[in-house]
Amino acid sequence: MENGVVNLTDKFSRINEHWSPRIVAAVNNFHIKLVKLQGEFVWHKHDETDEMFFVSKGQLTIRLRERDVVLGEGDLFVVPRGVEHCPVAEGECEVLLIEPAGTVNTGDAGGDRTVADPSWI
Amino acid sequence: MENGVVNLTDKFSRINEHWSPRIVAAVNNFHIKLVKLQGEFVWHKHDETDEMFFVSKGQLTIRLRERDVVLGEGDLFVVPRGVEHCPVAEGECEVLLIEPAGTVNTGDAGGDRTVADPSWI
Repeated sequence: MENGVVNLTDKFSRINEHWSPRIVAAVNNFHIKLVKLQGEFVWHKHDETDEMFFVSKGQLTIRLRERDVVLGEGDLFVVPRGVEHCPVAEGECEVLLIEPAGTVNTGDAGGDRTVADPSWI
Repeated sequence: MENGVVNLTDKFSRINEHWSPRIVAAVNNFHIKLVKLQGEFVWHKHDETDEMFFVSKGQLTIRLRERDVVLGEGDLFVVPRGVEHCPVAEGECEVLLIEPAGTVNTGDAGGDRTVADPSWI
């Protein structure tokens, strides 16, 4: 990180927890976060912001109320603000998130899976 | 694109020009752009915004005035606002850019390589 270059493979190899986003870069008021997912998260929404998911490895399903969005490696998808969604990953999946700094992983749902203040890695 | 899923390989396969960014997604006021690069661009800076480069394929060197930043596949780097830079790619390189909508590729430099209004793909 000394030279500012962020290698995704390297960063993901240092993430051991699921559902715990880590910040790797800031672009103005946005944070780029990496997160490993496995299993089912909680239904939630972000009323104030869109949220971008990019699948770096594995497969991710983003359940929406009216349909499932299935993402494989190299796929990205934007969940618009206010839209309820629930990420689900059968196997382990590596995801890059783009959203404003301060966006909380559980959105309006809260609860014990909330990571209110993710750390940099 | 009907279902909102953006596959990078598919999108890049439909880009034939170099140095001509195409928009694939919007996240609030930010655009996600894809661009194929080969050769040397122009020195420029963006006084009003940071700019993120993520190398999806190939190798990209971002020349800064004091050093070169070499990026391989899976590497990302943020050029801070106001910092002069010149992207150079010896072979063809596929890059994902994250920056505010309206950010012009040539920044303060202008000139005939400017794409002021990139189209969606």
